[in-house]
Amino acid sequence: MLTFSRRVTIEWQHCDPAGIVFYPRYFAMFDTSTTMLFEHVLGMTKYQLLKTYDFLGYPMVETRSRFMLPTRFGDEVEIKTTLVEVKHSSFTVEHQIFKAGELAVEGRDTRVWVVTDPANPDKFKPRPIPPEVIAKLTAAS
Amino acid sequence: MLTFSRRVTIEWQHCDPAGIVFYPRYFAMFDTSTTMLFEHVLGMTKYQLLKTYDFLGYPMVETRSRFMLPTRFGDEVEIKTTLVEVKHSSFTVEHQIFKAGELAVEGRDTRVWVVTDPANPDKFKPRPIPPEVIAKLTAAS
Amino acid sequence: MLTFSRRVTIEWQHCDPAGIVFYPRYFAMFDTSTTMLFEHVLGMTKYQLLKTYDFLGYPMVETRSRFMLPTRFGDEVEIKTTLVEVKHSSFTVEHQIFKAGELAVEGRDTRVWVVTDPANPDKFKPRPIPPEVIAKLTAAS
Amino acid sequence: MLTFSRRVTIEWQHCDPAGIVFYPRYFAMFDTSTTMLFEHVLGMTKYQLLKTYDFLGYPMVETRSRFMLPTRFGDEVEIKTTLVEVKHSSFTVEHQIFKAGELAVEGRDTRVWVVTDPANPDKFKPRPIPPEVIAKLTAAS
Repeated sequence: MLTFSRRVTIEWQHCDPAGIVFYPRYFAMFDTSTTMLFEHVLGMTKYQLLKTYDFLGYPMVETRSRFMLPTRFGDEVEIKTTLVEVKHSSFTVEHQIFKAGELAVEGRDTRVWVVTDPANPDKFKPRPIPPEVIAKLTAAS
Repeated sequence: MLTFSRRVTIEWQHCDPAGIVFYPRYFAMFDTSTTMLFEHVLGMTKYQLLKTYDFLGYPMVETRSRFMLPTRFGDEVEIKTTLVEVKHSSFTVEHQIFKAGELAVEGRDTRVWVVTDPANPDKFKPRPIPPEVIAKLTAAS
Repeated sequence: MLTFSRRVTIEWQHCDPAGIVFYPRYFAMFDTSTTMLFEHVLGMTKYQLLKTYDFLGYPMVETRSRFMLPTRFGDEVEIKTTLVEVKHSSFTVEHQIFKAGELAVEGRDTRVWVVTDPANPDKFKPRPIPPEVIAKLTAAS
Repeated sequence: MLTFSRRVTIEWQHCDPAGIVFYPRYFAMFDTSTTMLFEHVLGMTKYQLLKTYDFLGYPMVETRSRFMLPTRFGDEVEIKTTLVEVKHSSFTVEHQIFKAGELAVEGRDTRVWVVTDPANPDKFKPRPIPPEVIAKLTAAS
């Protein structure tokens, strides 16, 4: 399986009046890690990716998360993101955040590859993930 | 069941380069709606609530969401938040976001009532939800 | 002068571990108030505005702010936004946030009306604010 | 003068529907860089710093910024933060963001060292910056 790991230092800006990460910020971290996994495997930035394959992005379809341990500003955590499934026009990743070796947060996201709906420029529609992209993801797994 | 509804206009600041709400922002909206439900029933702000019952908050334990329709800046949506379960020291709420009458996003959160751990001021521990709070939530349901 | 006022309740999500608004969030509030002023005068959402006049937005060129009093979750504040100058392709607004009648924050922003640079789709260039828009802003002042 | 530099990759989550950084996010980056400068010089995290010197933080008093070039997701920028003045209970830092060697954003912030007001736990009051902290900042300059 294809995994991308990075170390992140929790910042003051991520935290709420309880002094811990305001949980929606974890989703922003997961979003960035997902993009970094793609960037790493495909060898281009997301900006280049959107241009190269002429699509709008991979919005979230379904997500779930569990929060076991709080993290706070100054904590250094490890975020591990694993591509667990690639389908025709969607994919699923799982995330784990470790704090001092302990599992603090885990999540699972399914996203869909979309383009502008030609029938209505205000809408999206799913599009097959390009075979070249699938091939590179598979080869890296 | 106890439900709190509000209308929210999606703002430029909520949206990403695809022009739609960056999904972690939905969790911030759900967080606010959950607090507004409590504030409405208990007749005090969260700030007063934390002081009155001397606790740290109700951090997220588990959450899941599904995203059916994108929303974009200028869209006016309705967010309905329902208290579906209250246990000893935790509670569960469900959220639905409607855009022009259609279900756009739904979520389900479980949170736990916590205090500072007397044994370690850097940690939290669950505490029973005060009977008075449970009584008011029950009466309002 | 053209002024737009609104009342905002400070939310948990706006606050940091000191329990007060994390100051970058004030800029997001100012951004929204600026857009609401335009929407109110022009009678359309920003989304419709961008489509109607075929431009990319009005990014910030220069901003300054002073912070006199902290605000915290549960505080209800009033944000007053005044259009103080409209030039060929830029405009300046001033903001004041009042908490219980006292001036808590003030800011001044200059923004420029931009389109995609035809010579380079990755760049912006300033464009004159449409005369119709200037006429409506002037009439409302 | 004491300067702290770091490289930051602009993320999707920082950007708005115009595809560029939503400018309030720059202030969050400046906030983090200011903290990193202190952490670097003092050899402790901000969390430890708040505990060691028993204060609430260094909220913003006054800030101003100019935005010369937009940055977008995938851009790698350099953020340089310089401590330009330390007074009795306040300090001033300047920030510069460079994109491919060009100055994209600059800012100047004045912050004040605060504690809880003993007369009113809901308020702050300025407190002298500890001599030890001033000594280390001076020695590092």
